[in-house]
Amino acid sequence: MNYRLEYISKLFEKTSKKRIETYVISRLWHLLSDLDIKFVPQQYVKRNNEKYALTDLYLPQIGMHIEINEPAHYDSEEHIEIDNKRKKEIEYKTNHIVRVIDCRESLENIHKQIDDIIFEIRERTNQHKINGIFVPWENDSEFLPDYHKNKGYLKVQEQPSLRTIDDICALFNVKVPMRGYLRRGSTMHPIEKDIEIWWPNASNRLWENQISEDGTTIFERHRDIEKRKDHVAWVVNQDYRRAVFLCDRDILGFTFYRFKGIFSIDKVLTQPGNGIVWKLIEKEMKLEH
Amino acid sequence: MNYRLEYISKLFEKTSKKRIETYVISRLWHLLSDLDIKFVPQQYVKRNNEKYALTDLYLPQIGMHIEINEPAHYDSEEHIEIDNKRKKEIEYKTNHIVRVIDCRESLENIHKQIDDIIFEIRERTNQHKINGIFVPWENDSEFLPDYHKNKGYLKVQEQPSLRTIDDICALFNVKVPMRGYLRRGSTMHPIEKDIEIWWPNASNRLWENQISEDGTTIFERHRDIEKRKDHVAWVVNQDYRRAVFLCDRDILGFTFYRFKGIFSIDKVLTQPGNGIVWKLIEKEMKLEH
Repeated sequence: MNYRLEYISKLFEKTSKKRIETYVISRLWHLLSDLDIKFVPQQYVKRNNEKYALTDLYLPQIGMHIEINEPAHYDSEEHIEIDNKRKKEIEYKTNHIVRVIDCRESLENIHKQIDDIIFEIRERTNQHKINGIFVPWENDSEFLPDYHKNKGYLKVQEQPSLRTIDDICALFNVKVPMRGYLRRGSTMHPIEKDIEIWWPNASNRLWENQISEDGTTIFERHRDIEKRKDHVAWVVNQDYRRAVFLCDRDILGFTFYRFKGIFSIDKVLTQPGNGIVWKLIEKEMKLEH
Repeated sequence: MNYRLEYISKLFEKTSKKRIETYVISRLWHLLSDLDIKFVPQQYVKRNNEKYALTDLYLPQIGMHIEINEPAHYDSEEHIEIDNKRKKEIEYKTNHIVRVIDCRESLENIHKQIDDIIFEIRERTNQHKINGIFVPWENDSEFLPDYHKNKGYLKVQEQPSLRTIDDICALFNVKVPMRGYLRRGSTMHPIEKDIEIWWPNASNRLWENQISEDGTTIFERHRDIEKRKDHVAWVVNQDYRRAVFLCDRDILGFTFYRFKGIFSIDKVLTQPGNGIVWKLIEKEMKLEH
């Protein structure tokens, strides 16, 4: 199935228990009718050290959140006050815009509110295009190894993404490395002999792998302290650099391996008890055809 | 909640497990954006004495069915053949139009197919308006007793509908008749002393009440044969006419009581063993303000 159709139809499915929300999101999507603009449901926003918020809909390319307030949001002055405070905190914290659709109104009026927001989305998108900062929603073709191989490079800022480990290996013309029936977690670069190609999960039963918010540091550690020490000792001696494709599963269940750059071990911070600390050293990588 | 919003959002919810279908139906609805045109999901169509079909979407006002064929519909020549035969049988049997959306195509092409169908819906709607045969989808206000009281009459051809027994009683300025905590199944007209106002269910645990396809005959029978005989003997002697509001639950779970006219007993066909047979005698009824 076409990626966008799969993505948006899953988004509608996810919200299907909140019927008014599905109605409003589907109307926004269909009337905007712009395949370059991505919709993200339930966007996580940090409000302060303790609180966070999930906004109903987020348009990452233009920094706009849309809250779809069913009538129950207005059932008390207190509730209205809390919603307003939340909206202001999100705007202050993120510098994004938050728009609210008030679903107490008649259907005609709800439609009018949607029309106004679509107008604003188009205005902001055009402004971003004029300023040269609009990045279109990635196309199906951009997930294919050949797309990147034809370009001849990967650049972190372009957020290159692949859908499977097979596709990562195809990028470097290597076979998927197996250990018995299982895929290994990395493979060696076929030409640059000191580069290991690595596709870590953020978290699984055995490993914890975290990347810093700015994307410059990765912490890799086995959950078991003894195995962690062995692993650190072994990897430090190898002294490979790593080309990292971090596995990322979004809220709709789509998995991507996103290129994060080439990393090398920070020998000061890396400690047997802490696990390995990787530092970003290259944001770009050449690809052979 | 607004009736249309409740209805359409329930329709989306109902199809939410069939993701492509929801996507297509929601796009048809939002881009058509005409609150006068009703969408009916899973319309029952008789194909012949043995077979029936459920079409994905039906637009009753213009007699158009829309089938949303996911890629699996094309997985074999046999499947394609069966679908074609089914389409032709529905068209032949109903004199309706059946349009098919082929979802094997790219998203852009699916959008194009939807645009073409929307164009056709608008064309047919306009033609019906020119011919004076277009009946707009009933508004919320048309379910209210005052709407009908202000008109001063009920006419079967306008398909007057109420949402509750309370509303039926309000139409005639009478209280809802109770038997203990339960509502009775009928009440007497406050002015026309030989008219009973009746709101039968098509079927429940105790009663079977069926209306003929042409709306001219109602069969009323208790499921228990002894009680049926007692009931027939009792009602035949009363010799009231009945103003009938048939209870009808649609596929989305909406209940309506639809005015079917004034009926009197057919004394030839009514038999103790068969139950009561009611014949339509008036298609119109006056209302007092």
